[in-house]
Amino acid sequence: MIVIGEKINATRSRVGQALKDRDEAAIAALAVEQVRCGAHYIDVNGADPNGEREAANLAWLVDVVRRATEAGISVDSANPAAAGPAMDRAGTKPIVNSISLEADRLEAMLPVVAGHDCLVVGLLMSDEGVPRTVEDRIDRAARLIDKLTTAGGRAIDEIIIDPCFFPLAADIEAVAAALASISAIRSRWPEVHICGGVSNTSHGLPQRRYVNLAVIVQAIAAGMDYGIIDPCVPGTMGLIYAAEALAGRDEFCMNYITAARAGQLT
Amino acid sequence: MIVIGEKINATRSRVGQALKDRDEAAIAALAVEQVRCGAHYIDVNGADPNGEREAANLAWLVDVVRRATEAGISVDSANPAAAGPAMDRAGTKPIVNSISLEADRLEAMLPVVAGHDCLVVGLLMSDEGVPRTVEDRIDRAARLIDKLTTAGGRAIDEIIIDPCFFPLAADIEAVAAALASISAIRSRWPEVHICGGVSNTSHGLPQRRYVNLAVIVQAIAAGMDYGIIDPCVPGTMGLIYAAEALAGRDEFCMNYITAARAGQLT
Repeated sequence: MIVIGEKINATRSRVGQALKDRDEAAIAALAVEQVRCGAHYIDVNGADPNGEREAANLAWLVDVVRRATEAGISVDSANPAAAGPAMDRAGTKPIVNSISLEADRLEAMLPVVAGHDCLVVGLLMSDEGVPRTVEDRIDRAARLIDKLTTAGGRAIDEIIIDPCFFPLAADIEAVAAALASISAIRSRWPEVHICGGVSNTSHGLPQRRYVNLAVIVQAIAAGMDYGIIDPCVPGTMGLIYAAEALAGRDEFCMNYITAARAGQLT
Repeated sequence: MIVIGEKINATRSRVGQALKDRDEAAIAALAVEQVRCGAHYIDVNGADPNGEREAANLAWLVDVVRRATEAGISVDSANPAAAGPAMDRAGTKPIVNSISLEADRLEAMLPVVAGHDCLVVGLLMSDEGVPRTVEDRIDRAARLIDKLTTAGGRAIDEIIIDPCFFPLAADIEAVAAALASISAIRSRWPEVHICGGVSNTSHGLPQRRYVNLAVIVQAIAAGMDYGIIDPCVPGTMGLIYAAEALAGRDEFCMNYITAARAGQLT
C-alpha cells in the first residue's frame, strides 16, 4: 500500500502553532519521522481554508518538506489559489487532495488537476451530500472518473477514489457500505487507486487506533491500495504489510520479510 | 469473541519445565495473566501425547488452573485416557480440544465427548489429510457435525469448528480458502461456533504477531466467534473488540467502549 502520511495538518494545534511560528525544524521533523515509519508521500494541510494565508502556508510547508525528505508531496487543499501554486513547487508528480463532485469544488479544482502531472484524490461527496449505499458510491465514482479523465486530463491510474468513511459508533452500516464499495470499485475499475480517510471511523471512540487498524486491514482486503494515515502509530506498518500479504499481494511474503529485516514492521 | 488462552502448552519449553517441576506458581501465573488480558477459557496442553504421563500432567494442570482462576477449562488432548479424566475435574462445561474426522481419533474421542456436558472443537482433518478448498471444508464440517450431534450427543451450538489454517508464507490460497470457508460455514450453520488456530498462518515468518492479528481481524469479519490465541500479545484484545464492532456484532460499540473504560483494550 502507498502510504500518505497525514501528520502535517495545521488543524492540529501543535502543527498549527509550528506553522504560525514558521518553525522549520518542527515541521521537518514530522516529515522525516513519517518517512522513517514508512510514508511514501507527505500530506501538507495549511489550514485557513480559502483564507488569504493558505497559499503562503502551503508554499512554505511544501518547501520545508522537500528540503527535509525525498518523499512525494500530497497537497491537501480544495482551494485552487493555494493548491495550484503549491503543486507548482511540489516536485515530481504530487498528489492533490482532493476534488469532489460538489459543483463549486469540481469546477474550481479541475483546472488545477488538468494543469499538473499529478495524482488526484477524488472524494465521493456531491451537492446531494455524503454517499450512503454501495450503488450510490459506484454511480458517483463513475461520474467523477468521467470528469477527471476528460476535463481533468488524468489517466485512470492517476485517480485515487476515496469512498468516504463515517464514524462506526454512529452507524455500522455506513462503515460496512464503505468497505463493500471498495470491493465494488476495485472490481469495476481494476486500474483506479482507492484510498480512505479511515481515521474518521473511530471518531468519538476511545483508543481510536484499534478501530483505525481494524478498518485498514479490512479495507486492504477489499482492495484499498493508498492510505492517508499516520504510519508512526504502533502496529500500523506491521498490519499493513500483513494485510497485503493476506490479500494475496505479496508473493511468498517477500515484502513482509524484507520490511521486517529492515526494521520497518512497527 | 470468546477467547481461549493458549499459553499453557507444555510443548513450549518454559511451560514444559514448569510442568515437569510441578511449579504451581508458574502455571497459575500464566492462567491469571491470560484471564486479566481477556481469556474466557484457559487451554491446558500436557504434552507427552498418548504417553503415560499425559493423564497425570493434564489432571495436575486442570487443578492448578481451577485453583488460580474462575475461567473455563479447555482440555487440549486427543487421547481419551487423558482427556476423559481431565474433563471430569474441569468444572462447568469445559471445552475438549479436539476431535477430527481421522478415524482413530474420532472413534476414540466420541465417547469422551458424549460422556461430558461440554463444548467440542472439531478440526477438519481427516484420513485424507488436510482440507484444501472451501467445498472440501463444507463437506468435512457436515460429516463432523453429523457425528457430533448423533454419536457425540452434542447440540449444534456446542460444536466449535476449526477450519485449519496453514502458513501464509507457503501458500496464500490456502489461507484465503480457510477464511472463505469461515463465511461459508457461518452461512450454512448459523448456530455452530467457529474457531481457528490462527497462529499457524504466521509460521516461518518474522514478527509473527502482525500476521496473526491481521488474520484474526479477517476471520472475525468472516464469522469466527472463538479464538485459540494469546490474549496478552499487545494489540490483540483491542483489535478483537474493534473487529467485532466492525463486523456489526457490537451495537453502538458499547462493548468496545466498556472494555476501553475497564482498561482491557491492550
